[in-house]
Amino acid sequence: MEFTINQLAELLNGEVIGNGETTVNKIGPLDKAGPGTISFLHNPKYESQLYTTKATAVIINRKLQLKESVQSALITVDDPYNSLTLLLKQYQKMTESEKVGVEEPAFLGEGSIIGESGYRGAFSYIGSNAKIGTNVKIYPHVYIGDNVKIGDNTLVYSGAKIYSNSIIGNSCVIHAGAVIGSDGFGFAPQPDGSFEAIPQVGNVILEDAVSVGANTTIDCGTMESTVIKAGVKLDNLIQIAHNVEIGENTAIAAQAGISGSTKIGKNCIVAGQAGIIGHLKIANQVTIGAQAGIGKSINSEGSILLGSPAFEIRDFKRSFAVFKNLPNMANRINDLEKKTLNLPPSEK
Amino acid sequence: MEFTINQLAELLNGEVIGNGETTVNKIGPLDKAGPGTISFLHNPKYESQLYTTKATAVIINRKLQLKESVQSALITVDDPYNSLTLLLKQYQKMTESEKVGVEEPAFLGEGSIIGESGYRGAFSYIGSNAKIGTNVKIYPHVYIGDNVKIGDNTLVYSGAKIYSNSIIGNSCVIHAGAVIGSDGFGFAPQPDGSFEAIPQVGNVILEDAVSVGANTTIDCGTMESTVIKAGVKLDNLIQIAHNVEIGENTAIAAQAGISGSTKIGKNCIVAGQAGIIGHLKIANQVTIGAQAGIGKSINSEGSILLGSPAFEIRDFKRSFAVFKNLPNMANRINDLEKKTLNLPPSEK
Amino acid sequence: MEFTINQLAELLNGEVIGNGETTVNKIGPLDKAGPGTISFLHNPKYESQLYTTKATAVIINRKLQLKESVQSALITVDDPYNSLTLLLKQYQKMTESEKVGVEEPAFLGEGSIIGESGYRGAFSYIGSNAKIGTNVKIYPHVYIGDNVKIGDNTLVYSGAKIYSNSIIGNSCVIHAGAVIGSDGFGFAPQPDGSFEAIPQVGNVILEDAVSVGANTTIDCGTMESTVIKAGVKLDNLIQIAHNVEIGENTAIAAQAGISGSTKIGKNCIVAGQAGIIGHLKIANQVTIGAQAGIGKSINSEGSILLGSPAFEIRDFKRSFAVFKNLPNMANRINDLEKKTLNLPPSEK
Repeated sequence: MEFTINQLAELLNGEVIGNGETTVNKIGPLDKAGPGTISFLHNPKYESQLYTTKATAVIINRKLQLKESVQSALITVDDPYNSLTLLLKQYQKMTESEKVGVEEPAFLGEGSIIGESGYRGAFSYIGSNAKIGTNVKIYPHVYIGDNVKIGDNTLVYSGAKIYSNSIIGNSCVIHAGAVIGSDGFGFAPQPDGSFEAIPQVGNVILEDAVSVGANTTIDCGTMESTVIKAGVKLDNLIQIAHNVEIGENTAIAAQAGISGSTKIGKNCIVAGQAGIIGHLKIANQVTIGAQAGIGKSINSEGSILLGSPAFEIRDFKRSFAVFKNLPNMANRINDLEKKTLNLPPSEK
Repeated sequence: MEFTINQLAELLNGEVIGNGETTVNKIGPLDKAGPGTISFLHNPKYESQLYTTKATAVIINRKLQLKESVQSALITVDDPYNSLTLLLKQYQKMTESEKVGVEEPAFLGEGSIIGESGYRGAFSYIGSNAKIGTNVKIYPHVYIGDNVKIGDNTLVYSGAKIYSNSIIGNSCVIHAGAVIGSDGFGFAPQPDGSFEAIPQVGNVILEDAVSVGANTTIDCGTMESTVIKAGVKLDNLIQIAHNVEIGENTAIAAQAGISGSTKIGKNCIVAGQAGIIGHLKIANQVTIGAQAGIGKSINSEGSILLGSPAFEIRDFKRSFAVFKNLPNMANRINDLEKKTLNLPPSEK
Repeated sequence: MEFTINQLAELLNGEVIGNGETTVNKIGPLDKAGPGTISFLHNPKYESQLYTTKATAVIINRKLQLKESVQSALITVDDPYNSLTLLLKQYQKMTESEKVGVEEPAFLGEGSIIGESGYRGAFSYIGSNAKIGTNVKIYPHVYIGDNVKIGDNTLVYSGAKIYSNSIIGNSCVIHAGAVIGSDGFGFAPQPDGSFEAIPQVGNVILEDAVSVGANTTIDCGTMESTVIKAGVKLDNLIQIAHNVEIGENTAIAAQAGISGSTKIGKNCIVAGQAGIIGHLKIANQVTIGAQAGIGKSINSEGSILLGSPAFEIRDFKRSFAVFKNLPNMANRINDLEKKTLNLPPSEK
């Protein structure tokens, strides 16, 4: 599995600077790359590593103006990040063995239908009347409840739990330990202070190309569906409460939480550990900063918010700069009060 | 499964406004309801939907003063939320098949005793000397360690893990991936900077009617028990550390965390992503806001707190209102300083 | 299993005050201890319990100056916490039965090698070409992917999931539901707003004596390794993103999150629910407070930080004290403005 730099440049639609006949046989980050490695520069923060790396070849942006001399051969491309993706896909295909067939014991309930080319790992469980598409990979210890539907080419890693009646699209990836369709947190308070559970009879719908991170939880709707639209990417340990709707291609980072019945627009970004309270509406292309707490609906597209409770990031940063300086400000007010102590009261 | 509105009104002890002989066959939220659907209005925020809904019937509060005309038949009741709960329970009973019996392979250790009418899913594991009550449903991939006791009518969903010596009450619900009885995070620091694990030989006690959300973790006590009292409701992805005690009917929302040895009172509410540090005491009926950080014991019942570190919500909101305006305040102080620059210093 | 206080004092290298021939047969906390119990005092916060406890014996620090009379016999030692650890270890050894052998059905893939004295629980899964050391305990429902390496004396509790190619050291403890080696959250944004997954072909390395809490998730590196160095202790529900490196003996509390490519030094403490953004460097012996949000690299060893965004704890506390008082400060500025209203503008 050795390639010349010229071969890779052709694959990536890039141009070679340096010796295109040198060969590489692995992929690695700039700072850890040695001879035989092809690396890439995407984040400008790491540009200095380009001039010191021992990588045999580096993929860079066509537009990058070199500030120093580089030892490595270069492949210049439009988008190094996409080129890396392409290379890694090839690499993955060549190095990973594909899982196919059924490992015993595996449990398959009555009336369930499974498409071709799939994999069912040992101790995987599929309930009754499930419909599983073509080329679906179900790893060991996966639980799939009754009546679940899963589209084609979906990957469900070990120990993911999918409750009854969930609907999962094509080309989804569900990581280990994720829980889909658990009961929403709905309880009717009783006069004596106890709670009566409100039966949660809805389900979860994951549209196509949704990614669900490890140990993330998505509750079913109370009466309707919790809906994760096409292309949504969820990181690890995220909580999605009942009746939530998340718009196309929205990405949510680890440990964020979305409370019940909130609707998030398309192409939003929710950073890590952020929280959104229930029954809100978030416009499209909104960015919510790390640890932000959203307490009100966000109506204007493209807003960027920070803080808990959150407001516009620019305003937050200005307020926070003063916050760091508050003890000084308190002293200045003390001084002003001393100075004005003997002034006559305003006549206003 | 079609019912007349009169029939449902009788079940709910409500009164009918409109045509009681119309029939409905499903339950749904106001904004998505179509013909044949019965819906409900509980949250005043959604009252406007009452006047536009296509639901055939709507359950409303007896005291609600209608502001516009309504197309749907109405059932007026004392508490629409409780009525909905009742309806959903009926609906659930009629639509879900009950799990009973044993699916093979299932593992049952020596000396363990299991009550009648239960369910043990395939790949469920019960260790030695466990005592499981009547009508307990144990889903696939559940792990129950040695000497565990579980009361009657308890539901343990797929992949929940219950360590040895845990004691679980009657009518509890434990959702997928929840972990009960893992080691507390206790380490004795050594002179060389390393840590020596302190063996955690206590256990976890869940009293009756406790609900544990998906992927929530509850650590065992170091020497004693971590105790979750009757009626406590825990949402998903919550952390309960060792030796914690949570009082009756306290509800804790997703991703909140309670540190070691803290005791929380009865009827408290802890909102999402809130954190409480260790060795504190929280009084009864305290409400802790979303993302709040509690660093001190709360002694007065009924307190409501917000912020990190948290203080009384009213005070927090006043301080936060000024915080948002801090840049303006900084400018005003600059102006004041300019004005008073030439004043003689106070003689005080 | 009854011991005299003299016997325990000898084991703990301590001195007895009181009747050394009395016997004890259990260990418990001061406030819940009864006759026959040996207890300990480590946290000065609980000293008052020493004077009221019903414990038969208490382990205390040699240097403690008693303020009142004590009913219990005392064992004075250098470090009560370490003595407790020692006692609990003995207790655990005597009360817990050791798991050994294989419970069927258990799955073992081709080419995998397993050392002696180990345990493989029912429904545990080991893929192909794995290398498992001596005395490794693999509980039910554990998933171990292809090519995984695990050192000697490591404990993997029920339902932990270890993806292919992970490398786990000696004497590690991995708690229930932990996920090791899930894909990093890496997606290349496309012009149409959708995301293309970047294959994550790296792995996770856990060095020796690492502890991983329940439902904690550790993503594999993109091209390299995510590395958890020797002696690191991770609590429950923590997120460790791809390419992260955590230095020796660093301890991280529950629900904290470390974003991609961040490097944390040795002997650091990260408190609960804290978050660190990606691509940062944190020096050795840094302490990060609960719920803190770290947005910049921390270069000075021994720093203690708090707030979101975080800064030096001393400064944070000063600013926060003023924050709580902001409404009062706003009033004082209003007063000052009234007083200076008629002053001539500064001539400056």
